[in-house]
Amino acid sequence: MSFKTIEWIDDRVIMIDQRKLPLEESYVECNDHISVAEAIRTMVIRGAPAIGVAAAMGIALGGQQIKSKDFPGFFKELEEICEVMRQTRPTAVNLFWAIERMKKLCRNNRKAKIGKIKELLKEEALKILEEDEQINRQIGIKGRELIEDGDTILTHCNAGALATAGYGTALGVIRAAYEQGKRIEVYADETRPVLQGARLTTWELNKIGIPVILITDSMAAYFMKKGKIKLVIVGADRITRNGDVANKIGTYGVAVLARHHKIPFYVAAPVSTFDFSMTSGEKIPIEEREGREVIQIFDQQIAPDGVRVMNPAFDVTSNRYITAIITEKGIARPPYGKSLRKLLKD
Amino acid sequence: MSFKTIEWIDDRVIMIDQRKLPLEESYVECNDHISVAEAIRTMVIRGAPAIGVAAAMGIALGGQQIKSKDFPGFFKELEEICEVMRQTRPTAVNLFWAIERMKKLCRNNRKAKIGKIKELLKEEALKILEEDEQINRQIGIKGRELIEDGDTILTHCNAGALATAGYGTALGVIRAAYEQGKRIEVYADETRPVLQGARLTTWELNKIGIPVILITDSMAAYFMKKGKIKLVIVGADRITRNGDVANKIGTYGVAVLARHHKIPFYVAAPVSTFDFSMTSGEKIPIEEREGREVIQIFDQQIAPDGVRVMNPAFDVTSNRYITAIITEKGIARPPYGKSLRKLLKD
Repeated sequence: MSFKTIEWIDDRVIMIDQRKLPLEESYVECNDHISVAEAIRTMVIRGAPAIGVAAAMGIALGGQQIKSKDFPGFFKELEEICEVMRQTRPTAVNLFWAIERMKKLCRNNRKAKIGKIKELLKEEALKILEEDEQINRQIGIKGRELIEDGDTILTHCNAGALATAGYGTALGVIRAAYEQGKRIEVYADETRPVLQGARLTTWELNKIGIPVILITDSMAAYFMKKGKIKLVIVGADRITRNGDVANKIGTYGVAVLARHHKIPFYVAAPVSTFDFSMTSGEKIPIEEREGREVIQIFDQQIAPDGVRVMNPAFDVTSNRYITAIITEKGIARPPYGKSLRKLLKD
Repeated sequence: MSFKTIEWIDDRVIMIDQRKLPLEESYVECNDHISVAEAIRTMVIRGAPAIGVAAAMGIALGGQQIKSKDFPGFFKELEEICEVMRQTRPTAVNLFWAIERMKKLCRNNRKAKIGKIKELLKEEALKILEEDEQINRQIGIKGRELIEDGDTILTHCNAGALATAGYGTALGVIRAAYEQGKRIEVYADETRPVLQGARLTTWELNKIGIPVILITDSMAAYFMKKGKIKLVIVGADRITRNGDVANKIGTYGVAVLARHHKIPFYVAAPVSTFDFSMTSGEKIPIEEREGREVIQIFDQQIAPDGVRVMNPAFDVTSNRYITAIITEKGIARPPYGKSLRKLLKD
């Protein structure tokens, strides 16, 4: 891969602008936490793990610029920065996980000099970045056993290097199997409205050299019925204690279709995507984004002026549709209440 | 409604250009059968009943321009014109139904003067046009009993006035219920790749004044699960003897989802959409259209250069997913082998 999803360079955060891919490979430079938050909100960067990394970097960046010289003042300002991050997107839990981790680091070092805390915040953000790629590689190693030579795999949205610090979760599993020499073909759902499948997944897989076929979301059932899809792998934005999974809108429909056609449906995600404070997926907040995302594709309007639109950005797939959840710690199978708890303890 | 889908004016065929809606309301003028065939192929006009009308008009138009003075010569040229029509689109059976009807008229009048036959061809095409709208109104009257006051209805693609000579099939049923004073809300799937839902269904319903909400295809399952969809109504491109239905790609997926959520799934179509030469849907030819339809929306490219694409334009929904088939002759329910045969006999 010849790109970085997100980088820290000279106290600036640089992100590839995912809104413009694949037509244009350009980068957004964030000089403060406000612009990092804006980049998350507007989906310059997206994908639960990548949002976590971006939030950590945003907090670290904001932290460098805090003027307070004493810890209470410093921490108060840091909390305000965290609040700005918290308000960007509600569904992916990695965002809140990263915020808590940065705040905890700060609290744990309350006795340190402010300059030292600033240094630690930066180090922690970079650590989260590095860990994420390592975790993805582990997810790949654990998950690749589920893929056989010759498999054709459907994926929805983009859970690849662009959705993470690198390598990918769902695409990480595919990649790890491919790197073992397994012959794989990927069907990429285009993933309306934001077209992460059409724009990002195809672009990434083309770069790696894994064969990919682009289809519209409406074609998934057709190819399942024709026996063209051997298994489905997707990422996740939040996984609750019972194994319910919030992920990009359309995931639930694909899961129902997979089940109907007796096709395994796998979710690949790091442990940071787990939200054990929730017993089930029903209470996961689902972000409703502006209707313009549906009626306008890049600058192209596709529906009449003033048409009413609904635009939920995520949906929740109940645990009963999920064959297995692949994490860096191993593969969990139903019943998830038990298997996920065990995975976290090990 | 202030538009005509297709008209015959002064020995020309005029069609609203459905490729450009809703951004532009412009008309295409066809002066010969070749340009009518091209209009069908490129989807200036689409929708099974409308394709039937267009084919009939194309044959009538071509017929006017035949030079042969004797019947064998005339009929040979007419058959060549019919062959051009036949090659436009393979799935919707109304096309072949209209071609056969025009040829039969010709054969039945082999003793008439060529000038008279030309006149009859034109009259027959206009008759098909008029009949189609009447048939749609009958479908509406038969089907509206399935809709209750306050229902929220999902539809896929466009089976409205634009897909027919006027009024519509699936949308005709919705319209007839609305005209009875029933309060209705329609969820329109955008229907990728050609976006008939986003571009045409919303535009039509806005004109009539029926409340409509645009969603992406990937959102249907989400709203079904939330209990927002009371029933589904779609049109059809071909219905086989056992009640299997070919319709716009994505229909099958919606039908599986409807069944999973215990939501009635209705198909509305004229009898001209029946293909009793086929015992089941497995052998219906599915048109594969060019990949450009998926990777380019109007002039906007949405995927990397050279990406592989699959673009089946239709899918087949097995009879077991279909709650009822609404025709101008009444409503058929399973088992369809029996009920459809009975309907045709009555």
